Amino acid sequence: MVNETQHTCSASSSSKSDGGSSSGSESSKDSSRCSTPVLDAERHERLREKMRRRQDSGDKWFSLEFFPPRTASGAVNLTSRFDRMGAGGPLFIDVTWHPAGDPGSDKETSSMIIASTAVNYCGLETILHMTCCNQTKDEITGHLQKAKRLGLKNIMALRGDPVGEEWEEEVEGFNYAVDLVKHIRNEFDDYFDICVAGYPKGHPEAESYEADLRHLKEKVFAGADFIITQLFFRSETFLKFMKDCQAIGITCPIVPGIFPIQGYHSLRQLVRLSKLEVPQEIKDVIEPIKDNDAAIRNYGVELAVSMCRELLDSGMVHGLHFYTLNREVATTEVLKHLGMWKEDPRRPLPWAVSAHPKRRVEDVRPIFWASRPKSYIYRTQEWDDFPNGRWGNSSSPAFGELKDYYLFYLKSKSPREELLKMWGEELTSEESVFEVFTCYITGEPNKNGHRVTCMPWNDDPLATETNLLKEQLEKVNRRGILTINSQPNINGKPSTDPIVGWGPSGGYVFQKAYLEFFTSSEIVTALLKVLKKYESRVNYHIVNVKGQNITNAPDLQPNAVTWGIFPGREIIQPTVVDPVSFLFWKDEAFALWIEQWAKLYEEESPSRMIIQYIHDNYYLVNLVDNDFPLENCLWQVVDDTFELLNSPTQQ
Amino acid sequence: MVNETQHTCSASSSSKSDGGSSSGSESSKDSSRCSTPVLDAERHERLREKMRRRQDSGDKWFSLEFFPPRTASGAVNLTSRFDRMGAGGPLFIDVTWHPAGDPGSDKETSSMIIASTAVNYCGLETILHMTCCNQTKDEITGHLQKAKRLGLKNIMALRGDPVGEEWEEEVEGFNYAVDLVKHIRNEFDDYFDICVAGYPKGHPEAESYEADLRHLKEKVFAGADFIITQLFFRSETFLKFMKDCQAIGITCPIVPGIFPIQGYHSLRQLVRLSKLEVPQEIKDVIEPIKDNDAAIRNYGVELAVSMCRELLDSGMVHGLHFYTLNREVATTEVLKHLGMWKEDPRRPLPWAVSAHPKRRVEDVRPIFWASRPKSYIYRTQEWDDFPNGRWGNSSSPAFGELKDYYLFYLKSKSPREELLKMWGEELTSEESVFEVFTCYITGEPNKNGHRVTCMPWNDDPLATETNLLKEQLEKVNRRGILTINSQPNINGKPSTDPIVGWGPSGGYVFQKAYLEFFTSSEIVTALLKVLKKYESRVNYHIVNVKGQNITNAPDLQPNAVTWGIFPGREIIQPTVVDPVSFLFWKDEAFALWIEQWAKLYEEESPSRMIIQYIHDNYYLVNLVDNDFPLENCLWQVVDDTFELLNSPTQQ
Repeated sequence: MVNETQHTCSASSSSKSDGGSSSGSESSKDSSRCSTPVLDAERHERLREKMRRRQDSGDKWFSLEFFPPRTASGAVNLTSRFDRMGAGGPLFIDVTWHPAGDPGSDKETSSMIIASTAVNYCGLETILHMTCCNQTKDEITGHLQKAKRLGLKNIMALRGDPVGEEWEEEVEGFNYAVDLVKHIRNEFDDYFDICVAGYPKGHPEAESYEADLRHLKEKVFAGADFIITQLFFRSETFLKFMKDCQAIGITCPIVPGIFPIQGYHSLRQLVRLSKLEVPQEIKDVIEPIKDNDAAIRNYGVELAVSMCRELLDSGMVHGLHFYTLNREVATTEVLKHLGMWKEDPRRPLPWAVSAHPKRRVEDVRPIFWASRPKSYIYRTQEWDDFPNGRWGNSSSPAFGELKDYYLFYLKSKSPREELLKMWGEELTSEESVFEVFTCYITGEPNKNGHRVTCMPWNDDPLATETNLLKEQLEKVNRRGILTINSQPNINGKPSTDPIVGWGPSGGYVFQKAYLEFFTSSEIVTALLKVLKKYESRVNYHIVNVKGQNITNAPDLQPNAVTWGIFPGREIIQPTVVDPVSFLFWKDEAFALWIEQWAKLYEEESPSRMIIQYIHDNYYLVNLVDNDFPLENCLWQVVDDTFELLNSPTQQ
Repeated sequence: MVNETQHTCSASSSSKSDGGSSSGSESSKDSSRCSTPVLDAERHERLREKMRRRQDSGDKWFSLEFFPPRTASGAVNLTSRFDRMGAGGPLFIDVTWHPAGDPGSDKETSSMIIASTAVNYCGLETILHMTCCNQTKDEITGHLQKAKRLGLKNIMALRGDPVGEEWEEEVEGFNYAVDLVKHIRNEFDDYFDICVAGYPKGHPEAESYEADLRHLKEKVFAGADFIITQLFFRSETFLKFMKDCQAIGITCPIVPGIFPIQGYHSLRQLVRLSKLEVPQEIKDVIEPIKDNDAAIRNYGVELAVSMCRELLDSGMVHGLHFYTLNREVATTEVLKHLGMWKEDPRRPLPWAVSAHPKRRVEDVRPIFWASRPKSYIYRTQEWDDFPNGRWGNSSSPAFGELKDYYLFYLKSKSPREELLKMWGEELTSEESVFEVFTCYITGEPNKNGHRVTCMPWNDDPLATETNLLKEQLEKVNRRGILTINSQPNINGKPSTDPIVGWGPSGGYVFQKAYLEFFTSSEIVTALLKVLKKYESRVNYHIVNVKGQNITNAPDLQPNAVTWGIFPGREIIQPTVVDPVSFLFWKDEAFALWIEQWAKLYEEESPSRMIIQYIHDNYYLVNLVDNDFPLENCLWQVVDDTFELLNSPTQQ
């Protein structure tokens, strides 16, 4: 039995078909264009392969360095920054190792946890820095094992700064970064991609520039995959360094570290730490404007852009590494000037994919967590397998509970005072709650003049897609149908559609209309009567906080509500309405009323009691209109419900 | 954490919502209507449950009894009969046990293999008869284990006729059917559904009618699930028997055995075997017309219809069991008269589902075997898991080889002489082969006046769906694009569409246009040039008999070409173009040229050499147009190919 699967071997049965086979070969290469990198190749590639592929294709890339924040709220902010800067398309980010900050711990602010957040929750390819001096082998191995367990796949191996003034070699310990590289390769084989630091001017403590180059070569030959350099101020510095590296046989990628000057003080501090000297021509510009932050930043951006252009134009540089100092503006501006900031509206899936290697096959999720993807990832982090292609009913293992650490992600980004302004200093009735929901939908200021830009269930303003439903949503929220999630029906839009598209180009995406809301038991009673008329067209799940559950879902099967058809592929159905996980979502959705909203007010206060009443008595409802090619009937369902409620016989 | 999944529990938070919950309960019941029985409930139910559900719903059913054929070609014919009579919707069929015919062996004609064929290849719920006298426990256990292994789930437990004139009880052996029932329950627990025989007039060897009823009760209490009766000639006979059974506490279903008289001799033979007496009023009618088969059959049908009506009208009978004597006409007519023959155009999936319990989750197959489903089932019979929902690339285990036994299913149903008339007594060129393909498509007689009603790759006339493409297919076959499989594109037709619909009602079905054909290397060369223009829109696989393979499929991923969207469900994608299994199909598709066609002719004859040449030199090509919402572009691809071939620069 022939079981060859040669992709494009030459057809040899006749001379004419040789032409055929060669065209087959070309077109096979072309066809790889029809797949989304992230869905296919990149999703399964390791960092060094991605780097190599970008280099081969001539597609320039950038990366971003961050340091761990000091406070828990700083961690929340940094996570948002990861999301925003991740949107520009970095090849990876890296997180520095703070020996003084308990970097390998489970603290929200540790290097380990911040890097894990970037990988797992923000879906970013991430390098975790790690230093080795003053640490035992076992400590280091422990850190590496933990990093592996958390889904980290890349380590930047550094010596780190010795504690105290004088530094002495330890005979048994790790004295140089090369020792750490060897240790990683010994203990973890080829699991991690390893990055090491290069010093374009030589390490300040090295005997000489040449000796430092030899040390670098040792690190590479010990198993490092690529090099990121210390910052420098002139492109010649880097280009000379690169040639010198190549001359002694270093062939791996060398990535220049770019430091856009962002302010006088940060520059001085960095120079002190790196022991670099700022060129006179730069000093000459900066000193006169040292108190004008904006002017310095503008100069810094300009300087970085022109240096980056020189580097890229040299033909020797394929990627740029940015020392962001955890700030967004300067780096983003440099990248935009260079045309390298690419907010690709094309998403591989309708939700952000986690970068944890365990989750790489994941391509279907319940719709309920659409606005809370991090919470979903957290609650499913213990799963061994992730659904691939089909959700399957009741096959899903248990969801993680709502615990303390989770509240870190459950927390609103906004401070209490701001939330009170948005959601009401004082609530007088259920209707004042309706008003908050309505203002969130319309974007209009509330009666105190504040715009409602987030809700407990949506940390961000309304999605573009939801905007398509704005008018109807406004109408129903005013009447006490408190919507927290919705999508319009879509009957085969191109996968490249800027609003609803996702996945490889050349495909078609589809959706069933979905509406999820809290509402009173009176409305639920009428709704259920109305839904009888829509049987089999509309599937519903209706549940209260106690778990009392009314549904017409056949056999607890999941209902696919978003799917895509692509060239040369199986169907992808990335979101489902799953009856089983809805009951886990329900706990979270009800808890948010209390945790985020009720607790803004004093115990026993009327405002708090109103939210508590809603929490205790309202139902969480989801509706799916299965007839996606027809006009969405869910608005009619709601209209019919109010008509029934207002009819005299009902009273 | 609340993890209740009560389907329709009552909402108790307010008095008003009670109304809501009760309507929820009703509608939940209604909603089960939206699922295809076979896809859901029936597919996973055992026979006794199906029977019970039909009884509860008042949906009358019928079943069909067959006996094993004597010859291999008789087995081929019986298999076709299973398919045709299976289309009328029997609840089950049963296959008798022929003690003299090596019934438990692997012979093509054994009871075991015929029953296995019905289950596995024809997708019919099947009962295998088994007799116990003159057999050891071990032999019987061996038969039962084999039946289980082959996917049989139901046994009709019988005593069987003792060999020789006088019958003596064996102390250690099986003397009565009740011993076999007990044995099955002892050794196989509840695995099998067990049926036993009832004798409305009492067993001929029983001491009395009453004693026989007591024996029957013993069989039921030993674990039988239902009873099928011996034939009888008057409805009163059965209805009295049924009441007598109920009177002594037999509560399981009792199915009347119906014998439509089909001819004088078969009636006499049956009467002799069953030791029944034919009522005088029937004899009076039959004797005068005993040499007029048609007249006897008409009378038999009439008689059976009126008796069945009486039985059904009694309200005590929910199903009818037919002794077909392996003939179709009489039984089919009776059923049609009764309005019980239901050729339901609604299919659960686009292909016939096997009834083997191991395959019940199977819902995706490669399109290549669309016209050869039995061959596909045979070649995948050793698989432990069947793809469920997604095919997944390269995950499929090996396909079974093309072995002798397989040729039983590979064989054409038509005899050699007929095939020669259709496919040509003498072939003079490749064009005479094109002509055969063209005649098969058009349905017009060939130049010798014979219609081509089958091809080596299609045992049946053109499918209704393929008829949609008839004109274009004719045109391309004439020019040497020898099509063996095709489907039109479908952009969301209702799942109840009589031609292309399948699955539960209320859904929408979709297809990508597909075309599969053999063609010369000259045409392939031009085709590949043309396909460059259609890159990413058209996926292709092109392979010759040696396995040289040209494709633009990304990463050997399967391409879903048929899928359906249904209310409250995940997406179903029942057919894919899978690059890996295409290479297994290729072996079969090329082998059919030789096995079915070339071998009709003498070795070294010109006709045989023409087929051999095509086999050795042609390519097997498949094309998928991924842009299913647009007009099928595959005809344009073929037109462009011929235009290129005919252009002067090409020459």
